[in-house]
Parts: sequence; structure tokens; C-alpha cells
Amino acid sequence: MNGHDPLERLRSAVAVALGHEPADLVIRGGHIANVFTHEYEQMDIAIHQGKIVGVGLWYEGVESVDATGKILVPGLIDGHIHIESSLLTPAMFAAVVLARGTTTVMADAHEITNSCGLDGLSYMVRESIVLPLDILYSVPSCIPPSPFETCREEIDAEMIANTFRRSLGAYLGEMMNYHGIVDGNPNAWDRVNAAGYRVRTGHAPELGGEDLCAYLLSGCDSDHELDSAEEALEKLGRGMWLMLRYNDLSRDSGDLLGVLQENLSRFARCMVVSNNVSARGLHENGHIDHLIRLMIKKGVPPFVALAMGTLNPARYFRLWDRGAIAPGYNADIAMIDSLENFAVEKVWKRGKQVVSEGRFLSDLEPCLGRLPNATTNYAAPLPEQLAIPAKKGHRIRVIGLREDSNLTDELIMEPKIKDGVLVSDAARDMAYIFVLDKNQGSGRVGCGFVKGFTLRRGALASSVGHDAHNFIVVAADMPSALTAIRTLIENAGGLAVVNGDKVLAFQPLPVGGLMSLDSAQTVAANDHALAEAAQKLGCGLNRPFASLSFLSCSVIPELKITDYGYVNVTKNRLSSLFY
Amino acid sequence: MNGHDPLERLRSAVAVALGHEPADLVIRGGHIANVFTHEYEQMDIAIHQGKIVGVGLWYEGVESVDATGKILVPGLIDGHIHIESSLLTPAMFAAVVLARGTTTVMADAHEITNSCGLDGLSYMVRESIVLPLDILYSVPSCIPPSPFETCREEIDAEMIANTFRRSLGAYLGEMMNYHGIVDGNPNAWDRVNAAGYRVRTGHAPELGGEDLCAYLLSGCDSDHELDSAEEALEKLGRGMWLMLRYNDLSRDSGDLLGVLQENLSRFARCMVVSNNVSARGLHENGHIDHLIRLMIKKGVPPFVALAMGTLNPARYFRLWDRGAIAPGYNADIAMIDSLENFAVEKVWKRGKQVVSEGRFLSDLEPCLGRLPNATTNYAAPLPEQLAIPAKKGHRIRVIGLREDSNLTDELIMEPKIKDGVLVSDAARDMAYIFVLDKNQGSGRVGCGFVKGFTLRRGALASSVGHDAHNFIVVAADMPSALTAIRTLIENAGGLAVVNGDKVLAFQPLPVGGLMSLDSAQTVAANDHALAEAAQKLGCGLNRPFASLSFLSCSVIPELKITDYGYVNVTKNRLSSLFY
Repeated sequence: MNGHDPLERLRSAVAVALGHEPADLVIRGGHIANVFTHEYEQMDIAIHQGKIVGVGLWYEGVESVDATGKILVPGLIDGHIHIESSLLTPAMFAAVVLARGTTTVMADAHEITNSCGLDGLSYMVRESIVLPLDILYSVPSCIPPSPFETCREEIDAEMIANTFRRSLGAYLGEMMNYHGIVDGNPNAWDRVNAAGYRVRTGHAPELGGEDLCAYLLSGCDSDHELDSAEEALEKLGRGMWLMLRYNDLSRDSGDLLGVLQENLSRFARCMVVSNNVSARGLHENGHIDHLIRLMIKKGVPPFVALAMGTLNPARYFRLWDRGAIAPGYNADIAMIDSLENFAVEKVWKRGKQVVSEGRFLSDLEPCLGRLPNATTNYAAPLPEQLAIPAKKGHRIRVIGLREDSNLTDELIMEPKIKDGVLVSDAARDMAYIFVLDKNQGSGRVGCGFVKGFTLRRGALASSVGHDAHNFIVVAADMPSALTAIRTLIENAGGLAVVNGDKVLAFQPLPVGGLMSLDSAQTVAANDHALAEAAQKLGCGLNRPFASLSFLSCSVIPELKITDYGYVNVTKNRLSSLFY
Repeated sequence: MNGHDPLERLRSAVAVALGHEPADLVIRGGHIANVFTHEYEQMDIAIHQGKIVGVGLWYEGVESVDATGKILVPGLIDGHIHIESSLLTPAMFAAVVLARGTTTVMADAHEITNSCGLDGLSYMVRESIVLPLDILYSVPSCIPPSPFETCREEIDAEMIANTFRRSLGAYLGEMMNYHGIVDGNPNAWDRVNAAGYRVRTGHAPELGGEDLCAYLLSGCDSDHELDSAEEALEKLGRGMWLMLRYNDLSRDSGDLLGVLQENLSRFARCMVVSNNVSARGLHENGHIDHLIRLMIKKGVPPFVALAMGTLNPARYFRLWDRGAIAPGYNADIAMIDSLENFAVEKVWKRGKQVVSEGRFLSDLEPCLGRLPNATTNYAAPLPEQLAIPAKKGHRIRVIGLREDSNLTDELIMEPKIKDGVLVSDAARDMAYIFVLDKNQGSGRVGCGFVKGFTLRRGALASSVGHDAHNFIVVAADMPSALTAIRTLIENAGGLAVVNGDKVLAFQPLPVGGLMSLDSAQTVAANDHALAEAAQKLGCGLNRPFASLSFLSCSVIPELKITDYGYVNVTKNRLSSLFY
């Protein structure tokens, strides 16, 4: 009956759809949230060979599940995530998001590819292929992310094309080199064209007007960098699909949701995405379910919100087999209490139940074969490399952190000078910031200052530093900085909070300096410990390591720092410490 | 500057988008109807190398057109049409629809393929390839349309696959053999599977419940056979894209538009289509513009109506380069006075102006190379073949015509008998109906009776008889029937109104018995002449030849007639004349 003869499989699927033969499974008595008609239907769902074959009231099943009083929704889809940002490996990530109703994620593994090259991407694909979560990887388009930072190996247009040929990627990862596209740089355009007929995802912060028009000629027609309602509306109007992140949804003034709600048709080309998400966030708040809850609370009609996490991303990514509960679709289904509350009780992936009472049913382990190597021959910087001589009569540039945003400001401040050398100044919240080339071990260090951490003493250090993921350290004093750097070198990465020569809290990240082998729960607990330790040093940020990690991101404006020093992203060039 | 070096073309497109170099053309000062945001934007459109490269207020052009006070809309798209139904060749069809703002049509050439085999399809493609209208052809899926009628040559699954390989078709034509699909008939399923990854269009009149579920497993996920609001809502809810025809839009009770308007999100998977359209209709009322006007008059929000003739069909057919006015899209644009009135003034196809003051600018001629041959060795039926002996005690089945619908009813009536033979009875509006095998010239004739033409004398005859396009004749008396048949045989097809031995009106159809070589205007004038002649014979129908042509359509319920005799479509079997 379940033979491999295609005609027999087909005959049997049709017979089940017609109700002539029993289905493998019937989910009975629930209310289906229909994303096509935007209404509930009290109908049974017949599942056969991993597919939904029928929706109706005439089905018998070998197995049957009672969903009376429950809502049945299509498995959720995350349209854009860097799984590495959760510090979880694909397996541990799958366990936590499946329990939240997610059954498909579009993953841009550019963190691990920056840190470990194609070996990193291949590790992610290898670990994902057996999981009961569909993780569809992009081929990263921008490695290195900019000419101003050091990645493990460059992935050029020919390597992108070849990676597609090997079927290691399903679509083109976010084209962050918008300067290259807008400047008609052949290097950027060749990478885009290497994607051929595939979906090309975008990243175009603050781009508008003629620059946005030029960018769109590349076919990169989605964006998750939406800093204002005006920006979002312009991008939508020029043909982009909007990917809304938590920050975009929770923003209060200049409300992005508001401008979409003026005409509900605008939501048709919108989806919700994680982009970056912490294990703690996943564990405590949830995944796409969390974003749907938030939107409904903000007044988005529940079915519109649901479509943004199901049908809309499926259509953008041309995944015709998912995003709805309908005949012929994959049997990826979540059973919840209500759209508004969205408490996930059961989840089926291709017809197999994987979640019960909100708990993931199997014990996934990360793939413990060969892990991708991060470079290990880090050259520890000499103390004199970190000591910048003052320049008489010059003020200095300082990175102005914005909390809960990846954008920064360029501040101009009077330096503090000691023995002819620039030093930190806790009184004015001016801390050291260093970025050390981890990826190629050149010994190159970028030095600068940052305002916003309110560190009175000690240091934070991280091997997670978007997008190249070199070591990044913020410190109130030099001894703490040196301890922090040593800790990362000895452990081949990790997240550290130190004070003087003491390590107060540490999260190991053995997979490429980016991912733990632990579960979301364990990583979430460490996250609390790190935040508390940072708080004791005076740090006033909610999520200090998230903030830290984006200070090296040389594709999001305005002033950032890499192993080459300051980068003015708006002007697309390196910038001097001295003003 | 316009060289063939791709990098140079690209550099130049980017330079134009940025406003650094002049565009080929700037359309200036108009209000763009933005189908993404559903609002008007007063913006200029920069066009370069046939593409829209910029939307904004900063463009200079080598050429410039003033659109002040006008509305600019994306070129219209017809998601489903049988061009042959207009009796126009592709070139003459293009001339009339371009003037109405249409720039893309999805054409299912199954009429000519029934009548002339793949030679017919190849003729259509050959004539279309040089036209300034994108006609994308399907590979017809159902030739013959059913086992109950005679086409020129069967197009089986292997021929479908091979026709795709030769790039003669872009998608699978409407799968009308819903009985075969629902019965799990390998012949039907093989044809569907021959489409591979391509869009598969559907045709599933009155299908619902478990049958609809089974049908949808085939991946044929659109339908234009929507007889009621309930049927439409069920099909939408099960995942189908709805193709709304004129009849669906103009219907008053059980209103299909009403059920969609309950929630505007439902329109996202709807489009408007012609399916069948007459040259007269095109000439006098318009094409997709006519349907948009009608929808707006019926209360559909104007931008929603516009999207149903632009963005929505483009997305269904995965044509990512059209359906909107945005950077990177084809420069297919119409300039109109308002969405509500939709009077087309200018049209650009790939940046080239093809319509001015509502008139098509060039003199297209039909491709006068080799025309596809319809079979010419028709065997004229012997009079005794048309004379059916009465059966004592038996009533007879009569086709009950429904005006303005392709559905019919099975009526049971007392026969009129003369000399032991069944004869027509004008007093009870019971006319002869005959279908003669034109395609293979076997001499096979199907005989029956029809009620609804109100013919008092004379006969109507047509070589347009869906879907196999054999000769179909309705007659009040036998001498007229014989004259009508002779007229069609002598002219290798055509539309004729005759009385006794006199031909009152005639439309020649030299191309496969389906298409004229004349313009829409000429064919429209003939249409009037034919209708007037029919009216003089007592025929009370608005469009007698349209009604006639569907009486042989063996895939639309309930009682139809082919060269094999009566077909009960609902029961999917031949049916006896005698009850």
C-alpha cells in the first residue's frame, strides 16, 4: 500500500482524498484557520504519506487525533534567520522552534561561513538534513561582508554559482553590498547574477530614491532593514517584500505597522522574520508565534498576522507546497489554543507528530562528527598594539550605541589622555573597543571607543561579532581587556565577562566560535548569568552581547569598527579615530 | 551605449536609475497606480532598454512624454483566454487588445490544437513571436477533451512533455478531464505530471467536497468554472486561484463578488480572465479593461480590481517581471484617464509606444505563410443518417439551453414523429441538432434535439464547436440543415445562417475552421449580420453562435452532444436519445 510505485502511491492518495480508503491520520473536530479565505472552518484534515490529501467531514483514519475546541494552523515559516545568532546548533535550534510551531526556516548561514568558510555552511546543511524541521539555506552573497573586515575565505561569484550547483543553497542570501550594487561594481553584480533564476534576498538599510531604484535592478527584492514607516512604504511601493523583525513590530512611534494597516492589502507582501534571535528569546518568548501574538496585540487582524508567518513567506520563496492547510500541501500543522494566545500544543511535520503538550518529542543531539574549524592560531596582540598615541589638537570619533537598534551614531568627543596615550573614561561612559582578526590570525587589531555600555570597570568580549565574527572586546580598563582577549583565545571563542584578571561569566562556543553544543534552556541560563555579571560591572544594557556583536557590522550605518579600524558605513569607507 | 556586453548594459541601466545618464524615455507628471501600496504616486517613470529602471522625480530622458493629469497602470494581463474564440488570428487579436491596454495574455490554444493538431499550436506560436503582445501559450492538456468526441490527433502525455521540451508552451492548459483525475486514471495523471515544475491550470465545474480534494492533488490549482458564490469560496478555501470571467462578474444573485468582498484579502488569489471572448465584444466593449470597469462599478475597490488584471495573474503564473510599475519590471504601461473609466490613451510595450489616442499604431497582418490545415475530406452525411426512427413508448432527451451560461439541462420531452421518424417541432422550440466529425472525416454524426434557440425556420451552422470543433448545426427543418452542412463543407468551415437553400449570412473561417484573417472590426460587423439573420429566423438568443458552440462541449455539464451523440457530462458517459 505504501509502495514506491508512483502510480500506486497516487492511486492510493486519490482513494484517501475521496474517503474510499482510510488516511494515515485524521485530525478531527478542530477549527482550521484558513489563510485563503480568512475564516475558521470546522473540518477534519486527512493526512496521507506526509501530505494533506483532504479537508472535509468524511474521513476515516488509521490513526485519529481529537482537536475539538482547538485551532489548527499551517506550520510557521521564518523567512529570514541567522541560526547562529541563537548560539544554538541547527539540531538544538530545531528542538526549540518546532515546539513553537515552526516547521520551515529560511536560514542565511553567513555567520558560520564568515567564520569557517564553506566548511561552515556544509556543517550546517549536514546537521540539518535529518532534522524534522525544513531548514532551507541560502548561499551567502557577501563574504566578506565588506572590504573592511576579515573573513575566513572569500566566497566569490564562481564559488556562489558552484555552491548552488552542489545544491547546498536554495536562494541567494541577503545582498548587503548595496554600495557595490548601486555603484555598478562588477564584483557585486556577478555575485547576484550567480543566483540565476533563484530568489535573491536583499538588505538595504536607509536606501531610498534613486539608490533604491538602482538596487532593485539586481532582483534583490526583499528587505528586513526597515528603520521607519516611510522607508518601509517606499520599499513596498518600489516592489520589495517586507520582512518585519521584532524591533519593527514593537516600535511605537513612526509605527511601521500603522502605515501597513492603512490598507490591509499592503500586508500581502509582508512577512515576519527573526533575522537575529537569542536562545533566551526563543526559550522564554518563542519564535514566529511570538511575533504573531505581538502583531495581533497591536491590532493586526489575526488572519493577516497568521499569513505573515505562513502563506506570505511561502509565496515569496516560491515554496508552493506549504503555508496553508489544503489538499496537496505538506502536512505541516500546529494545533494551538487561539490565534491571539497562540499556545502551541501539538505539531505535525510531514504528518508525523513531533510536539505534544508543547514539548518536543525526541532527543535531538547536535551532529557530533567533525565540527568546522575556526582558525586556532590566533596571535595575541601586544599591549602596545592597543595603546593609541594621542594626536595634539584632535578630538576623536566615538561609536554612539543606540539601544535596541543595530544602527549607531558617530559621536565627536574630547579624548582622555594619559602618558600621551588615549585611554577610556568611565565618567563620560567612553570605553575601549577592540576588534581582533580571529579568522586569518594576522594579528590585525582595530582600536576605538564606544559610548553606551556604562561600564564602570571590567570588560565584555565575544567571538560573535557581525558579520565577519572576529573577536570584539569592550573594556573599561586595559587589564580587563587583556584578560578578556586571553580568555577568548584560550577557548577558541566564547562570550566572556571579566574584571581585572577574573572571569566572572563565560559561555563556550566551540562550533566556529559561534555556537554552543547545549540546549536552548542551558544557553538561555548562561545568557542570564552573563547579563547579571555585566550588570555588576555597571553595564545598563538589556542585552549587552547583542549590542556588542553589531558594533563590528560594517554594513549597517553609521560608525562601526572592524579589525581594520573604524568604518563609516554611510560613506562606505574606513574612517580615522581622530577627527 | 546600447551594446551587447552584459556588464556595459548593466552599468548603463544603473547609471540611468541613479539619474546620472538620460533614460531612453521618461513618462512624466502622471499618477502611477501602485498595485503594492494601493495608492497613487505622482512620479516620473524612467525607461531604459525596455525595462522600467526608475520611479522618481529626478529623471531626464532622450525622449519624454507628458502624462500630466493621467493615470499610469501596469500593462494588463489576461490570465486565461482561448484566442480562437475571438475568431481572430493572434496578430489581429493583438491589435485590438493592445489598444485596450493588454500587454500579456496567457493563451490556451486548445481550439486550434483540437482542430489541427500540434500543427495548429505551432502556427499560433509562429505568428505570435514577432508581435508586440506577449502571448504565452499553454500546452493543452486535454486533446481530445473527452473520450466522447473526435479531435484531429490525440496529444498524449509524451507529446505534452515533448512540446514543453521544444518550448512551445509555458504552462499546462486547463485540465478539463476532472473525471480522469478524480478517478485516478493514469492517462489523465500522466498528462498532468508531464508538466513537471510548471504552473498547471484547472477546470473543475461544480466540483466540491472530496472530489475537489482529490482533483487538487494533481496540482491544477486554478479554475474559471465558478457557477456560484459557494463554489467559488470553497475552491478558494481549498487553495485554488480563482479566474473570474465576465459572466461571474455580471451575475446578480448569489453574487460571487459579494462573497469575496466580505474580506478583501480573498481577492489576493483572484484574477479576471476572458476564457472566451468575441471580436465584437473586444471591439465594442474592450478586454480586461472592460472587466476592471465592471468590477469597480460593482463596488470592488479600484486598486483591488486593477491588481486582478495585473499583479495577481503575474504572480499566479510566476512572471516576476510584470504586473506592476517598479524598477526592474518590463516597461509595459498603459496611460488612462481614470481607473473607473479606464479609457486607454497610450500603451507602451517593453518601452516602445504601440498605442496612441487609443489606436494601435502599426499595421499588423496575420502571418500569411502556411496556414494549419483543417481536414478537408469531409464526408457529407447521407440524409438517412440524420433521420432517427422513433422508438415506441419512449420519450426523448432534449438539451435545455441556458442563455448566458455554458451549462445545460437534460430535458425529457415527448417526441414529434412523422413517417416513423423523429422530427423537429418549432411549436415547442424543439430543434434538430447535429454534430459531424470534421476532424477525421469519418462521416460520424451525432443527432439530437435542443430547446432554447426559438428557431421558427432555417438553420445555424458552425465549425466552432467546443472543444473538438467539429461541425455543429441546429435547424428548424431538414432542408435547411442540409444546406447548412453543405455550406460548411464547401468552405472548410465558417459560421452560416441559412434558410431552405439560401445562405443568409456567412463568416468564413479559413484558419482551421476557427479563425478569420480579417480585423476585429470586420469580424464584429459580420457578427451583427449573423445575429440579425438568426433573429429573422426567430432566434431569440443574444449571441446564438456562442450558445451553439458550447453545446458540443463535453466537459461542462449537464447534457451535451458530440459526433458520438449525447454525452451526460455529470455522469461522464454517452447517453441515449431515448429516455
